[in-house]
Amino acid sequence: MKTEEISILGAGLIGSLMSIYLRRQGLDVSVYDKRPDKRKTPYTEGGRSINMALSHRGWKSLDKVGLKEKVLPLAIPMYGRKIHDEHGGTTFSPYGTKEQAIYSISRGRFNQLLAEEAESLGVKFFFDHKCLNTDFRTQEITFETPEGEKKMEAPVIIGADGAYSSLRMSMQKQIRFNYKQEYISHGYKELTIPATASGDFAMDPNALHIWPRGKFMLIALPNPDKSFTCTLFLPFEGTKVCFAKITEERDLVSVFKSYFEDAYQLMPNLTEEYFRNPTSSLINVECYPWVQGQSILIGDASHAMVPFYGQGMNCGFEDCFILNGLIEKYGKSSWDMVFEKFQKIRKDDTDAICQLAMENFVEMRDSVSDPRFILRKKIEAKLHQLYPNDWVPLYTMVTFSDMGYAEAYALGKLQEAIMDKVMANPLITENWDKLDYEDIINQMDSAKAV
Amino acid sequence: MKTEEISILGAGLIGSLMSIYLRRQGLDVSVYDKRPDKRKTPYTEGGRSINMALSHRGWKSLDKVGLKEKVLPLAIPMYGRKIHDEHGGTTFSPYGTKEQAIYSISRGRFNQLLAEEAESLGVKFFFDHKCLNTDFRTQEITFETPEGEKKMEAPVIIGADGAYSSLRMSMQKQIRFNYKQEYISHGYKELTIPATASGDFAMDPNALHIWPRGKFMLIALPNPDKSFTCTLFLPFEGTKVCFAKITEERDLVSVFKSYFEDAYQLMPNLTEEYFRNPTSSLINVECYPWVQGQSILIGDASHAMVPFYGQGMNCGFEDCFILNGLIEKYGKSSWDMVFEKFQKIRKDDTDAICQLAMENFVEMRDSVSDPRFILRKKIEAKLHQLYPNDWVPLYTMVTFSDMGYAEAYALGKLQEAIMDKVMANPLITENWDKLDYEDIINQMDSAKAV
Repeated sequence: MKTEEISILGAGLIGSLMSIYLRRQGLDVSVYDKRPDKRKTPYTEGGRSINMALSHRGWKSLDKVGLKEKVLPLAIPMYGRKIHDEHGGTTFSPYGTKEQAIYSISRGRFNQLLAEEAESLGVKFFFDHKCLNTDFRTQEITFETPEGEKKMEAPVIIGADGAYSSLRMSMQKQIRFNYKQEYISHGYKELTIPATASGDFAMDPNALHIWPRGKFMLIALPNPDKSFTCTLFLPFEGTKVCFAKITEERDLVSVFKSYFEDAYQLMPNLTEEYFRNPTSSLINVECYPWVQGQSILIGDASHAMVPFYGQGMNCGFEDCFILNGLIEKYGKSSWDMVFEKFQKIRKDDTDAICQLAMENFVEMRDSVSDPRFILRKKIEAKLHQLYPNDWVPLYTMVTFSDMGYAEAYALGKLQEAIMDKVMANPLITENWDKLDYEDIINQMDSAKAV
Repeated sequence: MKTEEISILGAGLIGSLMSIYLRRQGLDVSVYDKRPDKRKTPYTEGGRSINMALSHRGWKSLDKVGLKEKVLPLAIPMYGRKIHDEHGGTTFSPYGTKEQAIYSISRGRFNQLLAEEAESLGVKFFFDHKCLNTDFRTQEITFETPEGEKKMEAPVIIGADGAYSSLRMSMQKQIRFNYKQEYISHGYKELTIPATASGDFAMDPNALHIWPRGKFMLIALPNPDKSFTCTLFLPFEGTKVCFAKITEERDLVSVFKSYFEDAYQLMPNLTEEYFRNPTSSLINVECYPWVQGQSILIGDASHAMVPFYGQGMNCGFEDCFILNGLIEKYGKSSWDMVFEKFQKIRKDDTDAICQLAMENFVEMRDSVSDPRFILRKKIEAKLHQLYPNDWVPLYTMVTFSDMGYAEAYALGKLQEAIMDKVMANPLITENWDKLDYEDIINQMDSAKAV
């Protein structure tokens, strides 16, 4: 069994965690990133979201390498959605059981923790290395560095270099590479609700706040410094509220006063932030194959998704977990075989979560404020409570379990069809508590049996 | 009205015809191609199909610049499909009326004719110019040439550089560029049926020959030198007949003797050609927007389709025709406005023909040999004969008219639903001639009215 050096492209969250896994398997690992070393220059992400929601798949993947306890202090549990209506009223809707939460975490410090952990294990980091091209015949990478172009042989390459992956761009020029990149019509802008004058959170810190407004929305996630990072999602263009129509302070204030009055009161720096921060776009990327010889794509590089299911990072971490498991099982001598197995077992799952993330946008910005949607969730929660194994809500399967995403998606579609029938009952609002719940479970069992 | 120089990338069929259109509008036009000048080196296409089927949209576009008469001598009319069964029997199925034909034409000579015509009008050609990158902020193109890298300012750029377009690759890195490239599971290989010993065509030259075999097929198109260019379409991999399973002469001969016996008898050089010629893949490309400032994609660069409707070149020529019309209408001073209008009116049509081309593969390799399919076509032909304006078969709308592809597609789907009902009649085989044809037309009218 020979030990080869592994080259990882991308020192982000996924690349750093992958390097830890591989280093712990005794491999020599080098990580290359086009950005400068974050510990020497201020952390900027150029339009990437600052906050993420860490949930079960992410924690599982961190726990496997003993990092759960170290990460926990950086994370703030959010037990449900707090939905803000147009009049300042709020409704809390739990994500799962009382103990289940997703965790708000900031990209910068988290990334730093993972990179430092990797370095302490002996992973070598090379910053200011922008990958220009990868030649799969020679397994040679060309980097642009401050010292000029540099060519390097890399027997095994893992591309964790994100939605705009350079490794993927080289793969795209290979024959029979299927590829799709799709921008949605909405963009986003990050804003802040700072801590109050007395140094407290301005709202409940243990919830993900949503201002759903049909075609657009605002959300807010808590930070350890007691501020909230807000994200405003609007269509780029259109006849109603959209980024193109907010060109001066007056437009901005009018939108916020009309639609987000309670948040507006908490945002003293709104105008300055709005016109300073970039308007970023949202991309969905799917491709196949992920493998060329001894090179593989993982994380956003192979399946960048829109952020509306909070699974991008969790899915990328699970990629690391699964790939690590395959290396443990099949050894380190046959990378192409291991990579081939990985893509075969993983592709359906990442397709499913990309699709779910797209579908969840409508849910977040629109359905969550619909009383019938809330009732539906309540009935599903009761079903889950009565029959914890036979009816697991889709959100729970995705967020609080590690069932394959594709299986969760398929079960979710069966549940949806059954719940459509349940909700068609004209007296459902009055009688939802007296439904024949066992019959619903029996319907689900029959549906699964088909 | 200022006259700016237009730079066209790609000296293929579409780029050459576009240059003729623009030159005839009095513009300065330069065409750049990565390949060497074909008049100085032998014509090779590296896996691109040699034969094409020129039909109405193509002729219309050539006629507009007075080229129809010059091209006609290069083209051989094919009035229908000649379908070869497994026992050597053949059936002829006309494409339209007796006069309607699609025309077999060879890429090489046709391309040369167009390029020479362009040059005689004053278009400048630059070969051995491989576009490496286009910078849309500065409208600067970087070429790789035998004399080294060359940068050039190009105020207006038209990318007619094919399915693997370099201009598109630069656009792909722009924000909010939607892109999909998809390879189908089949590949193709070109083979030859030479002229007979006495110098004649070995089969009927006025038909497109098809050997439909369910999951795979062989086709043949006539050439002016009395040979036929055959194209074998097989899955790359699989458990049955596929390229991966033909590794030696024995495998090849066994496939041809089992499935294409009559063709096999006419192919003396089969083995040599099969193992010498490349196995090429088939790609579908869709993207949007096609425009970045004063740069635009046309032809395969913006919508490469699989070849099964014989529309790739015709559609690209129609792009030139339509773009030329818009320039005539709106003038030459506002390229971004003209380009914007072009993509808006054209995108739905090219999406439709990409989709039709994909769907037609099943028809060509499978349905055409089904007696029920043949009956269906016969009923549709009769409908068309009785009601020439109210029922135009889909193939006719696409091939022998210049109705928008999207409209043809939509009408085709309505016809399909009505024909499904007609064919559900259990006695249809016996009674097809006695159907209430007027009732069918009335159904179509009602369907259109919805």
